[in-house]
Parts: sequence; structure tokens; C-alpha cells
Amino acid sequence: MDSLGWVAVSSIVSAGLCIAIGAIGPALGEGRALAQALSALAQQPDEANTITRTLFVGLAMVESTAIYCFVVAMILIFANPFWQHFLGQSAGG
Amino acid sequence: MDSLGWVAVSSIVSAGLCIAIGAIGPALGEGRALAQALSALAQQPDEANTITRTLFVGLAMVESTAIYCFVVAMILIFANPFWQHFLGQSAGG
Amino acid sequence: MDSLGWVAVSSIVSAGLCIAIGAIGPALGEGRALAQALSALAQQPDEANTITRTLFVGLAMVESTAIYCFVVAMILIFANPFWQHFLGQSAGG
Amino acid sequence: MDSLGWVAVSSIVSAGLCIAIGAIGPALGEGRALAQALSALAQQPDEANTITRTLFVGLAMVESTAIYCFVVAMILIFANPFWQHFLGQSAGG
Amino acid sequence: MDSLGWVAVSSIVSAGLCIAIGAIGPALGEGRALAQALSALAQQPDEANTITRTLFVGLAMVESTAIYCFVVAMILIFANPFWQHFLGQSAGG
Amino acid sequence: MDSLGWVAVSSIVSAGLCIAIGAIGPALGEGRALAQALSALAQQPDEANTITRTLFVGLAMVESTAIYCFVVAMILIFANPFWQHFLGQSAGG
Amino acid sequence: MDSLGWVAVSSIVSAGLCIAIGAIGPALGEGRALAQALSALAQQPDEANTITRTLFVGLAMVESTAIYCFVVAMILIFANPFWQHFLGQSAGG
Amino acid sequence: MDSLGWVAVSSIVSAGLCIAIGAIGPALGEGRALAQALSALAQQPDEANTITRTLFVGLAMVESTAIYCFVVAMILIFANPFWQHFLGQSAGG
Amino acid sequence: MDSLGWVAVSSIVSAGLCIAIGAIGPALGEGRALAQALSALAQQPDEANTITRTLFVGLAMVESTAIYCFVVAMILIFANPFWQHFLGQSAGG
Amino acid sequence: MDSLGWVAVSSIVSAGLCIAIGAIGPALGEGRALAQALSALAQQPDEANTITRTLFVGLAMVESTAIYCFVVAMILIFANPFWQHFLGQSAGG
Amino acid sequence: MDSLGWVAVSSIVSAGLCIAIGAIGPALGEGRALAQALSALAQQPDEANTITRTLFVGLAMVESTAIYCFVVAMILIFANPFWQHFLGQSAGG
Amino acid sequence: MDSLGWVAVSSIVSAGLCIAIGAIGPALGEGRALAQALSALAQQPDEANTITRTLFVGLAMVESTAIYCFVVAMILIFANPFWQHFLGQSAGG
Amino acid sequence: MDSLGWVAVSSIVSAGLCIAIGAIGPALGEGRALAQALSALAQQPDEANTITRTLFVGLAMVESTAIYCFVVAMILIFANPFWQHFLGQSAGG
Amino acid sequence: MDSLGWVAVSSIVSAGLCIAIGAIGPALGEGRALAQALSALAQQPDEANTITRTLFVGLAMVESTAIYCFVVAMILIFANPFWQHFLGQSAGG
Repeated sequence: MDSLGWVAVSSIVSAGLCIAIGAIGPALGEGRALAQALSALAQQPDEANTITRTLFVGLAMVESTAIYCFVVAMILIFANPFWQHFLGQSAGG
Repeated sequence: MDSLGWVAVSSIVSAGLCIAIGAIGPALGEGRALAQALSALAQQPDEANTITRTLFVGLAMVESTAIYCFVVAMILIFANPFWQHFLGQSAGG
Repeated sequence: MDSLGWVAVSSIVSAGLCIAIGAIGPALGEGRALAQALSALAQQPDEANTITRTLFVGLAMVESTAIYCFVVAMILIFANPFWQHFLGQSAGG
Repeated sequence: MDSLGWVAVSSIVSAGLCIAIGAIGPALGEGRALAQALSALAQQPDEANTITRTLFVGLAMVESTAIYCFVVAMILIFANPFWQHFLGQSAGG
Repeated sequence: MDSLGWVAVSSIVSAGLCIAIGAIGPALGEGRALAQALSALAQQPDEANTITRTLFVGLAMVESTAIYCFVVAMILIFANPFWQHFLGQSAGG
Repeated sequence: MDSLGWVAVSSIVSAGLCIAIGAIGPALGEGRALAQALSALAQQPDEANTITRTLFVGLAMVESTAIYCFVVAMILIFANPFWQHFLGQSAGG
Repeated sequence: MDSLGWVAVSSIVSAGLCIAIGAIGPALGEGRALAQALSALAQQPDEANTITRTLFVGLAMVESTAIYCFVVAMILIFANPFWQHFLGQSAGG
Repeated sequence: MDSLGWVAVSSIVSAGLCIAIGAIGPALGEGRALAQALSALAQQPDEANTITRTLFVGLAMVESTAIYCFVVAMILIFANPFWQHFLGQSAGG
Repeated sequence: MDSLGWVAVSSIVSAGLCIAIGAIGPALGEGRALAQALSALAQQPDEANTITRTLFVGLAMVESTAIYCFVVAMILIFANPFWQHFLGQSAGG
Repeated sequence: MDSLGWVAVSSIVSAGLCIAIGAIGPALGEGRALAQALSALAQQPDEANTITRTLFVGLAMVESTAIYCFVVAMILIFANPFWQHFLGQSAGG
Repeated sequence: MDSLGWVAVSSIVSAGLCIAIGAIGPALGEGRALAQALSALAQQPDEANTITRTLFVGLAMVESTAIYCFVVAMILIFANPFWQHFLGQSAGG
Repeated sequence: MDSLGWVAVSSIVSAGLCIAIGAIGPALGEGRALAQALSALAQQPDEANTITRTLFVGLAMVESTAIYCFVVAMILIFANPFWQHFLGQSAGG
Repeated sequence: MDSLGWVAVSSIVSAGLCIAIGAIGPALGEGRALAQALSALAQQPDEANTITRTLFVGLAMVESTAIYCFVVAMILIFANPFWQHFLGQSAGG
Repeated sequence: MDSLGWVAVSSIVSAGLCIAIGAIGPALGEGRALAQALSALAQQPDEANTITRTLFVGLAMVESTAIYCFVVAMILIFANPFWQHFLGQSAGG
């Protein structure tokens, strides 16, 4: 197998593991925050607006770390500069 | 085994592990949030509407990290650009 | 062993691990939510309807992550596009 | 060892690990829910009917993830499509 | 070593690990439920009948996951279809 | 080393690990249940009979998972069908 | 495969793992802080301004560790000095 | 190294690991039960007889899992049927 | 692949893992401190100044361990003395 | 290296790991029981005799699992039947 | 690859892992101490001076373990005696 | 490298790991018991004699597991029967 | 690569891992003690002198385990007797 | 590389890992005991003498397990009997 093949294989494996491992942390963190938000809502219903707003802004921030992983996985699959190079070389070779 | 075979094998393994590992975090996070929601419902039944709505919007957000993994697994199986390339090459070779 | 064999072996191993690892998270998450639901029922029996309904809608959501894994495992065993390709190639070769 | 042998070996190992790993989560989750159910029964004996019914419906849902693993293990041992293919090929070869 | 030998070795290792790993979860889950049952008995002795009955029905359900593992281990040792095939082939060869 | 040797080696290793790993869960689960039983006895001495009886029936159930492992380990050492086959083959060869 | 290929493969794998592992810590840390913020809001609604401001400044600080990982991953993919060197060498060779 | 040597090496390693890993669970479980027994004694000194008796019967049950491991380790060292076979073969060869 | 290639590959892998592993601790530590700060603010709003000041000085100290990792990762990528040496040697060779 | 050498090496490694891993559980279990004993003594000084006696009988039982490991380690070093066999063979060869 | 290359590669990998692993402990320890300091400040604002002073002296002590790791990483990169030796040998060879 | 060398290498590695792993359990167990002893002293100063005496007798018992490891490590380094055998053989050869 | 090279490589890797792993324990232990000291200061400000003095004497004792690791790492880098031997041999060879 | 080299390499690696792993337990155990001592001091200042004395005698006992590791590491580096043997052999050869 030549370089082109190895780049393809490593991109596939990296993309798969990247989003899989990267989804553990955000999912657990968001679950925890969401659980506490519901507890806070039950304890202080009058502040539902402030709590909900803070919750969703914060969730967006936690989600951002999952999105970094998704972006890197997408780059590795669809916009991989190493793949482009070897593809060009292989086409022109 | 040539490059085409290796790309197939690595796609199969990556897709399987990607969704398997990626399902751990969301499932635990959702379970935790759901547990707390039920506890909040028992504590403050009058706020059932607010609690349930916040719960399901939040669960959708946690679920999104599982869906990223599912999307990547599906791409690796059914819309894998590396596979397309080697397939074309193998067909035209 | 040729490519066809390797694809078969990797599909078998991936499918087995995919559902096995993917069952850990949902089972633990559902167990936790269920435990809390029973505790909430004991604490607030008058809200049994709301609690039970929220519980089962939520469990269905958690279950969905297990189902993603089951779907991927089934695809890998019964509708594997890589296997189809090499099978066609091997039959036509 | 030819492809037929490798498919047999990988099916055996995958089936064994699949049900073994897949039994950890459901067993722990069911144990937790059951423990909480008994605690709820002791706390609110008058709701024994609702608690027991919710418990067994929920346990069935948790058990379903163990059953997915059992189904995949049985498919890998007794209805393995990859094994059928190589068996046919080996018989007809 | 030929295919027959490899199938034997992999069946032995899989059966041993299958029941060993598969015993961890049920044992811990049952231990937890049993502990809570005793605590509930001490707290509400008048409900001993309901508690004990729910406990043993629940334990049977948790035990079922251990039994799945035991069944798979027994199949791998005494009713292994892959072993039967290679044995027939080796006898007839 | 021929197949007979490999079957012997894998049986020895599997039997040893099977009972070693399989003893962790039951021992921890029984220890937990026993601890809670003693706590319940101190809290409600009048129910000593019910508590002790439930404890020992439950411990027997937990112990059963350890016994499955012991049975498999003994089968692998003293009644291994794969060993019998290769032994017969080696004796008759 | 020559040096150029190995540099490409190692960059792909490192970038994928770097952001995946690096996202676990920040996501869990932010989730925890966010959960406590919501609890504090419910407990002391009058201090919502101070709490929210401290929360977001602090989250930005935690997020910075995720951003370090993202920066390193991007450098490894798009501005890798080792890749540039071997590319130049390969072009000029 | 012939089969006799490999059987000896694997028996030594299995016996050592078997009792080492198998001692972790019982020791922790017994330590936990013992700790709770002492706490129960301090709480309810009048029930010292019942508590102590239940403790030692229970500890014997937990100890049994350690003894299974010890028995298997001793069998592997001093009454290993695989070793006997190869020894006889080697003596008679 | 010569020394120059190996130095490049090991630098890429080390830099990626260095910042990824090194980000786990600081992110969790900062998240914990931030969570407690918000709790302290809710409990003692009059001390908001002292609490916030101590928080940010302390966070800077925790952040310093992440920065050590970032510095080492940057040195390995952009100011690697081993790379410089082999580059000089390779250019002058 | 012949069989005699391999048996020596595996005995050394097994003995070292056996007692090292086997010491973790008993030490933690005894530490826990001892800690609780001191707490019980402070709570109920009048029962010092019963508590201390139960403690030391129980510790001896926990210690027994460490002693099993020590016995196996000593057997592997000083009374290893496999070593004796190969030694006799090597002396008489 | 000669010794000079291997020394370079191992220095790069060791330095990266050394600071990465070494940053986990101090960051978690400092985060914990900082969290407790803020809690103590909220509980006893009059002792802010003593608390803050003890905090920063203690943090410096915890930071020292991170600094040992940073020092060793820097020595391995910039003042490595083994590298100096082989460099001298290679230059003079 | 002959048997003498391998025995030396495995003895060195085993001795080092044996005492290193074997020190974890006792140190944690003793730390826990010591912590509880100090707490008991603060709670019941009049029983200082009983508490301290029980503590040190118990610590000696926990320490014994560390001493087993130390004894085995010393035997492996200074009184290794396998080393003596090969040394005699090598001297007399 | 000759012995001199291997000794250099193993010294570099050992020194790096030694201080990295060895810094985890002391940093966590010191962080815990420091956190409790601040809590004690807030609870009993009049005993600030005794608490602070005991804290720093104790921290020095915990720090000593980190210093053992630092000393061993420094010996491995700068005063390695094995390196000295092979260096002398290589110089004089 | 001959035996002398392998003994040197294994001694270096073992010594480094021995003290690194062996420092984790004592540091955590001492940190825990120290933390509780400070808490006890704050709770019962009049018993400062007894508490401090018991603390330091106990810490010395915990420290002893770290010292065992340090002693073994020093023996492996500076008084290694295996190294002495091969050194003498190599000098006299």
C-alpha cells in the first residue's frame, strides 16, 4: 500500500475516534448542567427566565468543544490537505 | 490486500467503534438529566410544564453529540470519499 | 486471506463490539432514571401520571442511543456496502 | 488457515465478548433500579402497585439492551451471513 | 496448527472470559439490590412479604444477564457449530 | 508445538483467569450485602430472623455467579471436549 | 512509504486525538461550573449579575485550554513546519 | 521449547495471577463487612452475639470465592492434568 | 526513513499528546474552583471582591500548568533543537 | 534459552506480581476495617473489648487472602514442581 | 537510524509526556485547594488575610511538583548530557 | 543473551515492580486508618490510650502486607535460587 | 545501536516518566491537605499558628516522596553509574 | 547488545518506575492523614499534643513504604548484585 492508501486509512480512523472520544466529555458535562438546571427550577420557579437563559448560553459554550471535534473530523474526511497533496501527486504521476 | 481493502476494513472498524464509544456519554448524560427531572417533578409538581420543556430542549442538545457520531459513522459507511476514490481507480485501472 | 475475508472478519468483530460497548451507557443511564422515578413515585404518589409519562418519553430518548448502535451493527452484518462490492468482484472475477 | 477458519475464530471471540461486555451495563442498571424500588416500597407501602408496575416495565426496557447483545451473539454463532458465504464457496470449490 | 486447532483455542479462551467478565455486573447488581432489601426490611418490617417477593423476582431478572453469558459459554464449549463443521471436514478429509 | 499443546496452554490460562476475574464481582457484592445486613440487624434486632434468612438466600444467589465461573474453570481443566478430541486423535495417530 | 507519507499520517492521527482528548477536560469542567452557577442563581437570585459575569469570565478561562488543543490541531493540519520541509524537499528532489 | 515447557510456563503464570487477582475482591468485600460489623457493634452492643455470628458465617461465604481461586491455583501447580499427560508422553517417548 | 523523518514524526505526536493530556488537569481543576467560587458568591455576596480576586489569581496559577504544556508543544513544533541539528546536517550532507 | 530458563524467568515474574497485586486488596480492606474500629471505639468506649476482639479475628481472616498469595509466591520460588522436573531432566540429561 | 537519532526521538517523546502527565496532579490539587479557599473565605471573611496567605504559600508548594517536571523536560530538550555526548562523538567521528 | 542474563533481567524488573505496586495498598490503607484515628482522638480524647494502641497494632498488621512484598523483592535480588543455579552452572560449565 | 545508546535512551525515558508519574501523588495529597487546612483555619481561626505549623511540617513530609523521584531522575540523567561504565569502556575501547 | 547492557537497561527502567509508582500511595495516604489531622486540630485544639504526636508517628509508618521503594531503587542503581556479576565476568573475560 502506498502513501495515498495510508493517508486514507489514518484519516478514516482518526475522524471516527476524534468525534467518538470528543463526544463523551460534552455529553456528560451538558447532562450535569441540565440536571442541576432542573433542580434549580424546582427550587426557585420565579427565576425560571434567568436560569433557562444562563443554561442555554452555557450549554452552547460546552457544545463548542464537541463542535471543535466535529470540525476536525469533517476536515479530516472532506478537506484533508495531506490527501489533496498525495492525490494530486498520484494523478500527475 | 490492496488499498481498497484496507480502506474498507478501516471504515468498518471506525464506524463501529465511533457510534459505540460515542453512545456512552450521551446515554449517561441524558439518564442523569432525566433522573433529576423526575426528582424535580416530585418536588415541585406545579412547575411540570417548565421542567418538562426545559428537559426536552436540553435532551435534544445532549442527543446532538450522539447524532454527530451517528452522522460520522454513516458517512464512513455510505459516503466515504476515500472509498469512492479507490473504487473509481480500481474500476478504471 | 484476500480482501473479502478481511472485510468479513472486521465486520464480525466490529458488530460484536459495537453493540456490546454501546449497551453499557444506555443501560446505566436508564437504570439511574428508573431508580429516581421510583423514588419520586414514593415521594409524590399524586403525580404518578406525569412522572410515568415523562419517564417513558425520556427512556425512549436514552434508548435511541442504544438503537443507533444496534442499527450500525445490523448494517455491518446484513447490509454492508463494502462486503457487497467485494462479493460482486469475487463473483465476477 | 484460510478465510473460513478466520471467520469462525472471529465469530467465536466476538460472540463471547459481545454478551460478556454487554451484560455489565444492564445488570448494574437493573440492580440499581431494583434497589431503589425496594427502598421506595419501604417508604410508601400504599403505592406498592404503581411502584412494582413501573419497576417491571422499566426493567424490561433496560433488559432490552442486554437482549440486543444476546441477539447479535446468536446471529454471529448460528446465522452468520459471512460464514454461510464462505461455507458455500468452500463446499462448491 | 490448522483451523480445527484455532477454533478449539478460541472457543476455550472465549468461553472462559465470557462467563468471567459476564459475572461481574450481575454479582455487583444483585449485591446492591440485596443490601437495599435488607435495609428496607429493617425500616419497614410489616412489608416483609412485598419486599421479599419483589426482591426475588427482580434478582431473577438480573440473574438472567448472567445466564445469557453462561448459555453462550456452554454453546461455545459443547455445541459449537464452527467446531462441528471443521470436525466433520477433518473426519471426512 | 502442535494443536494438543496449544489447547492445553489455552485451557490453563483461561481456567486461571476465569475464576480469578469471576471472583471479584461476587466477593464485592456479597461483602456489600453482608455489611448492610449487619447494619440492619443493629437497627432492627427484632427482625433478626427475617433479615438473616433473606441474607443467606440472597447470598446464595450472588454466589451462583461465582459458581458458574468455577464450573467453567473445572470443565476447562477436567472435562474439556476439545482436549479429549485432540488427545484421541494424537493417541490414534 | 517515505518520510513525507509518515509525516502526513502522524499529523492526521495526532490532530484527531489532540482535540478529542483535549475536549474531555474542558467540557466536564465547564459543565460542573455551569451546574453550580445555576444552583447559585436559584439560591441567591439577587446576585444574578455578579454570578453570571464571574461564570462567563471563568468559562472563557476554562475554554482556553480547549482552544490550545484546537490551535495545536490546526497547526498540525494546516501549518505543519515538518510537512513544509519535506514537501519542499520532495518538490525540489 | 516443546509443549511440556509451554505447559509449565503457562501453569506458573496462571497460578500466580489467579490467586493474586482473585484475592482483591474477597479482601475488599470482607474489609467492608468487617468495618460495618464494628460500627453495628458500637451502635447496638446488646446484639453482639447475633452480629458476630452473622458476620463470621457471611465472611466464610465471601472467603469461599478466594478459596475457589486458591484451589484452582493449587490444581494448576500440583495436579495439572495437562502436565501429567505431556510428562507421561515425554517419559515414554 | 532516516533520522530527520523520525524526529519529525515523534515531534508531531509528542506535541499533540502533550497539550491534549496536559489540558485535562487544568480544565477540571479550574472548573472545580470556578464552581466553588460561584457557590461562595451566592453564600456571601458582600465578599464578592475578595472572592473574585482570589479566584482569578488562583486560576492564573492553575492555568500556568496548562501553559507549561503549551510552551513545550510549541518548542517541539517550532524551536526543536534536535530538528535543527538534523536539518543542518541534512542540508550540509 | 531452553525450557529450564523459561521456567525460571516465568517463576520470578509470577512470584513478584503475585504478592504485589495480592497485597493491594488486603491492605485496603484492613485499613478500612481498622479505621472503622477506631471510630467505633471513640463512639462506644465501653465495648472496647468486644470491638477489639472482633477486629483482630476479622483482620486475620482478611490477612488470610494475602497469605494465600504469599504461599503461592513462596511455592513458585522455593518448591516449584515444574522447576524440579526440568532440573532433574537437565542434571540427568 | 544511529544512536544520535534514537536519543533525539526518545528525548522529544519523554519531554512531551513528562510535562503532560506531570501537569495533571498539580492542576487538580491546586484546583481543589483554591476551591476550598473560596469556600473558607465565604465562611470566615474576617480571616481573609490568613487564608489567602496560607493559600498562596501552599499553592507554591504544590506548583513545585509541576516545576520539577518542567525542569526535567527542559533539561531533556536543551541540556541533555546524552545528546551532547553523541553529538560530540558524531562531530568528531 | 543466555539464561543467566534473562534471569538477571527478570529478577531486576520483578523486584522493582513488586515493591512499587505492593506499596500502594498498604500506604493508602494506613493513611486511611491514621486519618480516622486522629478523628477519633479529637472526638473522644479520654480514650487516647486504647485508640493509639489499637491503631499501632492494626498498622503493624497492614504493614505486614508491604513487608511480604519487600521480602519477596529482597529474595529476588539477593537470595534468588534460580540465579544461584544458573550461576553454578555457568561457573562449572 | 550499541549498549551505550540503549543506556542513554532508557535513562532519558525513565527519568522523564519517573518525575512525571511521581508528581501525581504528592500534588494531589498536598492539595487535599492544603484544602483541609484552609477549612480548619476558617473554622478555628484562633488556632492558626498550630494549624499552619502542622500543615507545613506535614507538607514537607509529603513533598519528600516527590523529592525521592526528582533525586532518582537527576541520578539517572547526571550521575548514572551504568552510563559511566559504558562511556569509559567506549572511550578506552 | 550483550547481557551486561540488558542488565543496565532493565536496572535503569526498574529503578525509575519503582520509585515513581511507589510514591503515589504514600503521598496520597499521608495527604489524607494530614488533612484529617488539621481537621481534628480545629475541632479539639486542647488535644493538639496527642494529635500531632500520633500524626507524626503514623506518617513515619506510611513513609516507610515509600522508603522501601527508594531503598530498592538505590540497590538497583548502586548495589546491583547482577550488575556486579556481569561486570566482573566482562572485566575478567
